[in-house]
Amino acid sequence: MKLHDLDLSGNCYKARLFCALIGVDLEIVPVDFLGGAHKRPDFLTLNPFGEIPVLEDGDLVLRDSQAILVYLARKHDRDDWLPADAEGLARVTQWLSTAANDVARGPNDARLREKFGYDLDAERARAKAAGVLAILNDRLEARAWLELGRPTLADVACYPYVALAEEGGVSLTPYPAVLRWMDRIRALPGYVGMPGQRAGA
Amino acid sequence: MKLHDLDLSGNCYKARLFCALIGVDLEIVPVDFLGGAHKRPDFLTLNPFGEIPVLEDGDLVLRDSQAILVYLARKHDRDDWLPADAEGLARVTQWLSTAANDVARGPNDARLREKFGYDLDAERARAKAAGVLAILNDRLEARAWLELGRPTLADVACYPYVALAEEGGVSLTPYPAVLRWMDRIRALPGYVGMPGQRAGA
Repeated sequence: MKLHDLDLSGNCYKARLFCALIGVDLEIVPVDFLGGAHKRPDFLTLNPFGEIPVLEDGDLVLRDSQAILVYLARKHDRDDWLPADAEGLARVTQWLSTAANDVARGPNDARLREKFGYDLDAERARAKAAGVLAILNDRLEARAWLELGRPTLADVACYPYVALAEEGGVSLTPYPAVLRWMDRIRALPGYVGMPGQRAGA
Repeated sequence: MKLHDLDLSGNCYKARLFCALIGVDLEIVPVDFLGGAHKRPDFLTLNPFGEIPVLEDGDLVLRDSQAILVYLARKHDRDDWLPADAEGLARVTQWLSTAANDVARGPNDARLREKFGYDLDAERARAKAAGVLAILNDRLEARAWLELGRPTLADVACYPYVALAEEGGVSLTPYPAVLRWMDRIRALPGYVGMPGQRAGA
């Protein structure tokens, strides 16, 4: 499997992290993101959205970090990370949407503005980040993991841009339960980090 | 099953539409959205994000329209709409993320601004809408459905806010393949509509 990747992308990191946690090898294909390679015709053939990561597995080409996580879990029969039953799958899927929406609009957009100069409203993104972090903190005060009492794709999908929030000017200090959850994720066997992450509680 | 619902919400409509398509009954619980009921403590206990829809099935409480679609498909063994295998599930999941992200930021945000007065940047939302509609149109020029050669949750998740785009000031006329796809969805057995939808090609 080939991952079209950028080391500084939290979305790409989701796939790298999950493969490390389940002991699956990935061939990393670096994309010259800062040089605009993801907007060129050859890359747009892989992903018309012009976004990384993209996973290639034989003839299959998948875009979207959440879909890639789902594929990796199912291909490797890791129902512990992504249940097959209706309730378990739906519980985890709630957080895949949170990663694709609230986390993307919050800490991810704030970081895109501050670190990469994207034309985004930093204050709006930080307000959105504060909203989702408060919800995560409330939830994680009462439980160790987002769903099912164990680490799942819910945690893997939401963690990267939370851990990178401070690069977008969003302090994590007001969210101690989130910091403790981050420490639990970092203590998982096989865990790998990425540049720019907050060190934890 | 109870759906906490607003008739004017495209996210709630996703669940109503899918239940109609697969012949499943839903008890509709109207939420006084314009009166702010979704931000009051009793509703926030159901969904701390303060968003509709919420599905209750016995003790299970699910938020997020994509997760609700996944639950309904799996509970009713409709692998035709949501495959269980790695590739099929991941292919559909790509579009659940598109619904939660690009479609939400594009035609949905434009409509929230124009129809409900939300504090959102209408021009930015319309530009985002144009981007995702162009990608959908390119894709649907070559195929009848978004994935797998048949109607799936990918179509159900992306259709509602596309069909409502003109309420946000986004014309669908430049996207003839999208209009033909909308006509195919409307021709599915069991289909139900909602107020404000563009009538089709």
